[in-house]
Amino acid sequence: MIVPGFKFAATAAGLKKLGVADLALLVADTPAAAAGVFTRNRVKAAPVLLSQERLRKGTAQAILVNAGNANACTGLQGLDTARETCRQVAELLKIPESLVLPASTGVIGTPLPGDRIIQALPQLVAGLTPDGLGEAARAIMTTDTRPKASLVKGTLDGREFTLAGIAKGSGMIHPDMATLLVFLFTDAAASPGILKKLLRQALPVSFNRITVDGDTSTNDTILLLASGRAENPPIKGEGEAMTTLGKAVNQVMGELSLQVVSDGEGARHVYRVAIMGAATPAEAKKAAQTVALSPLVKTAMAGEDVNWGRIMAALGRSGARFDPEGVEIAFGEQPVVQNGRGTGPEAEALAQQIIKSGPFTVAINLHAGDCADYYDTCDYTEDYIRINADYRS
Amino acid sequence: MIVPGFKFAATAAGLKKLGVADLALLVADTPAAAAGVFTRNRVKAAPVLLSQERLRKGTAQAILVNAGNANACTGLQGLDTARETCRQVAELLKIPESLVLPASTGVIGTPLPGDRIIQALPQLVAGLTPDGLGEAARAIMTTDTRPKASLVKGTLDGREFTLAGIAKGSGMIHPDMATLLVFLFTDAAASPGILKKLLRQALPVSFNRITVDGDTSTNDTILLLASGRAENPPIKGEGEAMTTLGKAVNQVMGELSLQVVSDGEGARHVYRVAIMGAATPAEAKKAAQTVALSPLVKTAMAGEDVNWGRIMAALGRSGARFDPEGVEIAFGEQPVVQNGRGTGPEAEALAQQIIKSGPFTVAINLHAGDCADYYDTCDYTEDYIRINADYRS
Repeated sequence: MIVPGFKFAATAAGLKKLGVADLALLVADTPAAAAGVFTRNRVKAAPVLLSQERLRKGTAQAILVNAGNANACTGLQGLDTARETCRQVAELLKIPESLVLPASTGVIGTPLPGDRIIQALPQLVAGLTPDGLGEAARAIMTTDTRPKASLVKGTLDGREFTLAGIAKGSGMIHPDMATLLVFLFTDAAASPGILKKLLRQALPVSFNRITVDGDTSTNDTILLLASGRAENPPIKGEGEAMTTLGKAVNQVMGELSLQVVSDGEGARHVYRVAIMGAATPAEAKKAAQTVALSPLVKTAMAGEDVNWGRIMAALGRSGARFDPEGVEIAFGEQPVVQNGRGTGPEAEALAQQIIKSGPFTVAINLHAGDCADYYDTCDYTEDYIRINADYRS
Repeated sequence: MIVPGFKFAATAAGLKKLGVADLALLVADTPAAAAGVFTRNRVKAAPVLLSQERLRKGTAQAILVNAGNANACTGLQGLDTARETCRQVAELLKIPESLVLPASTGVIGTPLPGDRIIQALPQLVAGLTPDGLGEAARAIMTTDTRPKASLVKGTLDGREFTLAGIAKGSGMIHPDMATLLVFLFTDAAASPGILKKLLRQALPVSFNRITVDGDTSTNDTILLLASGRAENPPIKGEGEAMTTLGKAVNQVMGELSLQVVSDGEGARHVYRVAIMGAATPAEAKKAAQTVALSPLVKTAMAGEDVNWGRIMAALGRSGARFDPEGVEIAFGEQPVVQNGRGTGPEAEALAQQIIKSGPFTVAINLHAGDCADYYDTCDYTEDYIRINADYRS
């Protein structure tokens, strides 16, 4: 996982409990075009506020990320700590302080121990290497059970380019414009405006269509840095090059978002709730979201129970307009409801096999129009409870 | 629990798995003034549709309730079964068929075995007795661990009156205008219009302010029957008598709704999320609801963890407007957040004792206005998952 123009490093700063890696530094060799999207939660973490401010000029060179502490609800002191740790990074890298972006994930409301981070920085900077992205992906994990990374290559005006991304996220997943921590790096040359446009285009087919528990984080952040080392003619407007890079962004963000939902806290089953035949796009989205978020549907999937009655109940409270007698529901290709009625125990037994056999789609046709949308989600198992009841203890 | 003018009975019709009581009959000696409120879920069970239709004239004499099968998503066949079982009740009681209301709760989407119900009816009718309400409360349970009942007495124009109610509900609890099955009986004399008004008045301080899992049932039903045996001058408009009866309705519905949420599936902790200082009534309600429904707050409460950061995150995504730096949060009387910041580990330790010691209030002041609202809810434990993953198996 190498992206020309970038170096990465990770180390243990003592923020997590077990002394494992919890601090990562992601650095461009020279100032890179940069764009970001952030949580729309009204309560925003200090690093989100600072990164939003610094990204206004569309350039960044380093990202300092810690796991184990969200630096959220920490007031002015939290902002100071974010600023101070970034300042130290700037000094060690000999770059302007304003080009360093902070990002944090972990417990909300506990002061971030900036001194531990600052102590770990010299070692972190010394460890920067072009092939350090995998290690960085591991360092930013919290309740994640595995690191999330994705890479694509392509061609822009005859020049090969690379786009790689890493993500973390397992609980408090219900992104609204962005999710948790996602860092994307490319050597393509593109303006910050184009990068921002591509991020926004990718959201409705990636992170804005996944949910684990309906809880939107205070720290959701997606950053995209472009080094320009591919030496393609810089992309500054619509056209074939923008389309090509856009497809790469969609692909990497799509893969990362699926990796996130597949690693949802305690998840044993991953499924897509696909709505067709809704009256309006808003109703399609709302219906998909309501079924995807329903705790009773989630627990039924954990029990590998084709309990379509709970899906009907969730659709019925979603606000989408439809005639219950017209609804069709299928698990994969196996219909279990036609004209609002169950197709019988044999069909359910076949559908249960589909649940058991890996990621699947719950395909719902409301027959009320021609709008479609979807959400990717995972089941609720006893482990979700266990993980979150004991999270701070 | 005797209400003059009413008789009750329960029996086992073989709808539940263990051969326990699952069928109840609730009968007025003579036609009673009646009112009801029902689920606003677009998918409505057959008994809901039939009861809504029959209640239009404001009179009812019998309610036939079964547990174990919701008779929802069962199409025309489901409506036929509801009609036929009620017709048999009418015949046995020698009353008009249109005065019999059906109600069902249990699995959605499985045909209701009407023959088993009809077979059990003669025995059920033979068992009708003035003191059978407690048995009926037990027969309508599904995942409930205990029956729910409440009774108050009062005086109307010098005449003593009684109001009693029973309820069932443990999962799929997020009422919208009504919840699950609630049956209220009074010997007071009042017009159907007044009864309806009193039900609607009581909702915002009872069943419309509780949530277990955010899933709204297809079968939510509240019925109130008034026999008039108290011989008070019939209440037909606003005034002292209506206020008196209204208070009784509020009290019984308030107690029943608390009993429901306390018996939430797998619940070990019951708490009230009370919002103060919201900018508008709608924002107060939305903020209370979002915190009450947050799976991460629910699991933290299960772990007796004063994880106020998750409360802040939930408030932040609720849509309520507020300055995060102005928020106050207290568990009972113990502040844990002031000016948006934690008050420290000692305060959290004291708050944890409050969580451990029984039902408590999470009091949140947004300092953004003077509107208040609340939701009563319960925690998410591993038992919630277990109960719902295995519900049909």
